[in-house]
Amino acid sequence: MRNLKLTIEYDGAGFSGWQVQPDRRTVQGELLSVIEPLAAGGVKIIGAGRTDAGVHAVGQVASVLLETNHDVDTIGRALNATLPDDIYIRAVAEAPLSFHARYDARSRRYDYIFIRKSTALWRNRFYQVPEDLDIDAMRGELAALRGRHDFTALSAAMDEGRSTVCTVIMADLLEAPPLLTLSVVADRFLTSMMRIVAGTVLRAGQGEPVSVASLIASQDRSTAGPTLPPHALYLMEVLY
Amino acid sequence: MRNLKLTIEYDGAGFSGWQVQPDRRTVQGELLSVIEPLAAGGVKIIGAGRTDAGVHAVGQVASVLLETNHDVDTIGRALNATLPDDIYIRAVAEAPLSFHARYDARSRRYDYIFIRKSTALWRNRFYQVPEDLDIDAMRGELAALRGRHDFTALSAAMDEGRSTVCTVIMADLLEAPPLLTLSVVADRFLTSMMRIVAGTVLRAGQGEPVSVASLIASQDRSTAGPTLPPHALYLMEVLY
Repeated sequence: MRNLKLTIEYDGAGFSGWQVQPDRRTVQGELLSVIEPLAAGGVKIIGAGRTDAGVHAVGQVASVLLETNHDVDTIGRALNATLPDDIYIRAVAEAPLSFHARYDARSRRYDYIFIRKSTALWRNRFYQVPEDLDIDAMRGELAALRGRHDFTALSAAMDEGRSTVCTVIMADLLEAPPLLTLSVVADRFLTSMMRIVAGTVLRAGQGEPVSVASLIASQDRSTAGPTLPPHALYLMEVLY
Repeated sequence: MRNLKLTIEYDGAGFSGWQVQPDRRTVQGELLSVIEPLAAGGVKIIGAGRTDAGVHAVGQVASVLLETNHDVDTIGRALNATLPDDIYIRAVAEAPLSFHARYDARSRRYDYIFIRKSTALWRNRFYQVPEDLDIDAMRGELAALRGRHDFTALSAAMDEGRSTVCTVIMADLLEAPPLLTLSVVADRFLTSMMRIVAGTVLRAGQGEPVSVASLIASQDRSTAGPTLPPHALYLMEVLY
């Protein structure tokens, strides 16, 4: 038995998210159907982040337990030759049998990318916002995300029984006109957390009175900003 | 009667090109169906560049002859509110009645955008090439494009009866890793010319013996490079 670490890019538009679901096209499902023929026995694929429907990945990581004698380069080439073109395996590496893509991840980085103009060409990749935004106000509210907090107020109520405490290591806005990228590194992300954070911080940028610190303290989802659409969200990297 | 100058962005993926064709979805057709209800009488729409199926535009220009009393801002807002979201009107301006978007254009700029890595996310926007390219060789061949030449060898044989002479004003490669943009300004472009130029220059970048100067002199299409796909081609601007 071997354990392989896959680094995976995908275009989320055509998928009902990462995780296998009956009768849905998912990234994990496509990988399974392509990897199974390469393996002598069964295959188990574990993803580091369960991205929602429509969310993209530049650096999703999966650990894959399988029996095979092929070398990693051959496996990478074989996978990319067989996978649909909205999934691309960027790297295949040998990992210890104990490596678990989800449990061993120390942090994940997600980027939510705004575009500060109206656009037909990039409407499916970035979220269109006005050019006139108060970037300083947005940065001010982002600062309140950092540290260890209960993020109940900034997540969808779908994580029953799981902890709602996360540690945000980095939260920043990067300007590369016309793009504006909200980049957050945390040990873990709750359901829809990144999209709700983006919607809340955007409100601050549009001059609305927003206090992320009070919001976090309130643990009340109803006062947070809207959940922005998935097409502008990217799982950028997973750190171990 | 008024004459309006429209600057138009579109995502070419969903269109059989600019020009109206029966039973096909085209940019001109969509514009007509949205502008006609705004006009008292008939409407005539003239585009500066007849982009092929799948080709994008950042700055297509159209002149629109119509009868209306609305001001240009109202017209712009009304069009964008009604148009499908793969077309966006960037500007509406009043033009003299004599203005003709196609005949009056002094030059057009097209960009063909390569991406120097394999990618799932950007496969529909850029053309994937290896990172290892001889950029100097590509620039050298591009230099031979400049000036007034018969471009028969670098166009598809679909322009019967029309002149095959064009003046290339600028031809350059811009590096913004991982993107590599072939940018050409010319007074006019022949059918598929930009995509054949891109395919020919790419050959030079991959170490194949290519001489654009001899190719132009030969007037023989069969020795040029392949016609690259339309999804990486952008009509960037039209100059008057």
